[in-house]
Amino acid sequence: MRVLGVDPGLTRCGIGVVDGTAGRPLTMAGVGVVRTPADAPIGERLVLIEQGIEAWLDEHRPEAVAVERVFSQHNVRTVMGTAQASAVAILCASRRGLPVHLHTPSEVKAAVTGSGRADKAQVGAMVTRLLRLDAPPKPADAADALALAICHIWRGPATDRLRQALAAQTAATRSRGAAPTTARTAAARTAAVRNRESAT
Amino acid sequence: MRVLGVDPGLTRCGIGVVDGTAGRPLTMAGVGVVRTPADAPIGERLVLIEQGIEAWLDEHRPEAVAVERVFSQHNVRTVMGTAQASAVAILCASRRGLPVHLHTPSEVKAAVTGSGRADKAQVGAMVTRLLRLDAPPKPADAADALALAICHIWRGPATDRLRQALAAQTAATRSRGAAPTTARTAAARTAAVRNRESAT
Repeated sequence: MRVLGVDPGLTRCGIGVVDGTAGRPLTMAGVGVVRTPADAPIGERLVLIEQGIEAWLDEHRPEAVAVERVFSQHNVRTVMGTAQASAVAILCASRRGLPVHLHTPSEVKAAVTGSGRADKAQVGAMVTRLLRLDAPPKPADAADALALAICHIWRGPATDRLRQALAAQTAATRSRGAAPTTARTAAARTAAVRNRESAT
Repeated sequence: MRVLGVDPGLTRCGIGVVDGTAGRPLTMAGVGVVRTPADAPIGERLVLIEQGIEAWLDEHRPEAVAVERVFSQHNVRTVMGTAQASAVAILCASRRGLPVHLHTPSEVKAAVTGSGRADKAQVGAMVTRLLRLDAPPKPADAADALALAICHIWRGPATDRLRQALAAQTAATRSRGAAPTTARTAAARTAAVRNRESAT
């Protein structure tokens, strides 16, 4: 399985491509950074990020894309840009029909180092060891993108199984007639159908 | 001048197209909403927003696009989605080489009602009067998108003049040799050039 990881950012968007399956040695297929000038208008920067990510997708043809899940708790001055860069990455992948998975920074750290609170240096060191590289990839955004791809290769199937199990459990609870949950779910479903009908 | 206003949102993205120039009566060329199902994956929703906005741009061929500037102070549960939807709108416009302008909600309210704290009803009422409509456009996102377009037609040139004046002033200060500012600006410029050189 080939996964392209994206550590989104307006100034530096880390990209890392990893081949492998859970339980087998991993291989790095590519790593780099898409940069945009900090003094360019936001529209120009988003277009550059789109062109950069498209070029990576064209060249490496991944089967899945893993993007860091952005939280609003982060530094408020950078979080909007990060959300916008992640939107472009998710859009590029989805437009090609590629599955997109979001992983939180602590999920990624826990997956590659064993601790959700690992620092940048520890993540870089583990990425270097897992991919048998000579030195940690630089800048840190590039190493983080590789860590995201590794996290996805290892966690992806487990997360999907967990999601399916939860969905099955929810369905079972629903069929036993838990009234408030059913009401809420039905309302949500009606709203979704309404939206879909009037979607452009 | 024809301006397309976008009130970004994942569930409802308001779109409003207005023709006019400052000081002349305005005309509405179109209004609507791009909707996406709340239960669809984020990637699918962003693709639907892109397709919706592209269709509006194709049909109405605006000369400029005005997008609401998203603030992180807003409700943190919706702000990430709003930032992502706005990124798609900005990207679609910039990809066509259209100028994109961001206006804050209070700039828009102040422009159309005279008060930066006007409520939805007041904005709707003024949009109805200014565009000589029979009733306020619904939902509120559609009215807000028209207000954005009106705000841009009225404020755009003034804002640009202000920006130019500020830039000229900054340049003058710089040439008088204000040491710390110059150092900081030079460093920023070098970084930008470096980014540009290594951009993909």
